[in-house]
Amino acid sequence: MSKTYQVVGIGNSIVDVLSHVEDAFLTENGIEKGVMTLIDLERAAAIYAITGPSTEISGGSAANTIAGIAQLGLRTAYVGKVKDDQLGAIFAHDMRAQGAGYEVPLAPADHEAETGRCMVMVSPDGERSMNTYLGVSEFLTADDIDEAMMADAEWIYLEGYRFDGPESHAAFAKAIAACKGGGGRVSLTLSDPFCVERHRDAFREMIKDHVDLLFCNEHELRAMYQDDDLSVVLRLAAQEVDTVACTVGPKGAYIWRDGKETHAPADKVQIVDATGAGDLFASGFFYGELNGYDTLTTGRMGCVAAGEIISHIGARPETDLKSLFAKHDLL
Amino acid sequence: MSKTYQVVGIGNSIVDVLSHVEDAFLTENGIEKGVMTLIDLERAAAIYAITGPSTEISGGSAANTIAGIAQLGLRTAYVGKVKDDQLGAIFAHDMRAQGAGYEVPLAPADHEAETGRCMVMVSPDGERSMNTYLGVSEFLTADDIDEAMMADAEWIYLEGYRFDGPESHAAFAKAIAACKGGGGRVSLTLSDPFCVERHRDAFREMIKDHVDLLFCNEHELRAMYQDDDLSVVLRLAAQEVDTVACTVGPKGAYIWRDGKETHAPADKVQIVDATGAGDLFASGFFYGELNGYDTLTTGRMGCVAAGEIISHIGARPETDLKSLFAKHDLL
Repeated sequence: MSKTYQVVGIGNSIVDVLSHVEDAFLTENGIEKGVMTLIDLERAAAIYAITGPSTEISGGSAANTIAGIAQLGLRTAYVGKVKDDQLGAIFAHDMRAQGAGYEVPLAPADHEAETGRCMVMVSPDGERSMNTYLGVSEFLTADDIDEAMMADAEWIYLEGYRFDGPESHAAFAKAIAACKGGGGRVSLTLSDPFCVERHRDAFREMIKDHVDLLFCNEHELRAMYQDDDLSVVLRLAAQEVDTVACTVGPKGAYIWRDGKETHAPADKVQIVDATGAGDLFASGFFYGELNGYDTLTTGRMGCVAAGEIISHIGARPETDLKSLFAKHDLL
Repeated sequence: MSKTYQVVGIGNSIVDVLSHVEDAFLTENGIEKGVMTLIDLERAAAIYAITGPSTEISGGSAANTIAGIAQLGLRTAYVGKVKDDQLGAIFAHDMRAQGAGYEVPLAPADHEAETGRCMVMVSPDGERSMNTYLGVSEFLTADDIDEAMMADAEWIYLEGYRFDGPESHAAFAKAIAACKGGGGRVSLTLSDPFCVERHRDAFREMIKDHVDLLFCNEHELRAMYQDDDLSVVLRLAAQEVDTVACTVGPKGAYIWRDGKETHAPADKVQIVDATGAGDLFASGFFYGELNGYDTLTTGRMGCVAAGEIISHIGARPETDLKSLFAKHDLL
């Protein structure tokens, strides 16, 4: 009997606040370019006060992936915490509206923290620098994990970012145990090199013991295995998990599986906003994986979905991804 | 001595909630295409629940105009009411960030209404259907009008939409009296044909007695003077105000001044989202007017600014408008 869910994602529930900045703005305000930095509410307010007019759009890394998966018509759900406030309502609406069954452990309206948000500052070259206030997203605990849902999933998809938080490790452990107990498989995304620095040992243990499919980019993988040689760290990772899917920017992705490397090339795309490239790569990859496509096609689906997301502002797909797959002769 | 403000706008403070819909969605849900319909909070929630993933971006007709004027470097301010809630904070941030001195009579966090929002549903042809919940925006009263500010403005810019509300007529009357008392001039935008239907007599009185510059489109002007012949209603309006600036979609605008008609043609633009076309026409027009350009150039500036706004999602300019004027040899 097929399971209710093909992929269940767990991640930070974040509303993105997108603005355009010059690189000098980043330097002057001590904002590190191209990475995600965690900030508190006070710093979030200070940065917001000096950024230009913004656009608000639902984000969150795993949430973006699940939105893409839902748009591709797979059976999916997302678990992440928002508050009962206006930004929380926006986030929840956008997940449901995309067709992603949304499991929302709602923090009460009087919770001291607010719904999480991410100041996404887009430079003229399309690179994005993210300053994230996690808010109530950080307070997702083991109590918020529904074991029956995890056991009823073919895959769970764990967001590395979600490891930032006092009780997140226990929440992930509970989700993993329930999923594996139900015969499901576990995927993890490393999210960001600095996230890897913060959680290297815990990630490593999870990878070795539980992870079947690892999503990462080259910078994250180098940080994880502490070696600058991409071919070395790819081999190290491939020894520990069934499948490694590592994106390498405009060059596409390297996929390691059964001791073999496959290179899935990316198409040339005019980068407007790089936010969500890795997230949507995972959406496309899951589509290929769950529909039994070969490794190259599966990787190419990831690249095509990533290419769609970087061609516009925001990290949720605006074009029908399946039509794009067809256009690229992948279906 | 030059005045502190070149243009002060008064309007509805609204956050736009943009989504893409098929025309069938509008028909099925009784939403009238291409116009602005007022709705209550309950209906707003019901429509929000069935629309797809959305993008939130500050809107409001006069607010869009003032944002454009601020981007053009004119001395400007905006008066409109938001609540002390998350959407209110977003609206206020975006006005300040654009450089528009923002006068915010803030409704308290426990006010029964919320910050206003407008469900902007964009059809495949780029036409937008707007369902607006005015929220606290409706509660702008005469008490919120700072007479010293109005007296210190070369122009005030009144949004027709803002006439929907129990105390708005008194607020406008106070603003007009203070502005005229200070030697300033009054402009009005008719906003929408249905808005004209709701307030025809009050608008007519205001036009005859106080308005120096009338912004409108052909549909609004026909509704105002109840005749289908555009040349007839243009002449009728021109008898009552110094300047009539009437947009006619892809054909540009007709400007009546000193008994003479000037046609300012629009450039061919791929329409992505028509929201804000009239608002930004007014921004460009004010730039020409306040810098002493001839009528044709002034009208063309309006058309070029309108062309920028309809080429992307959202009603706030994303490109430097002055550079666009230069590119079109208008400066």
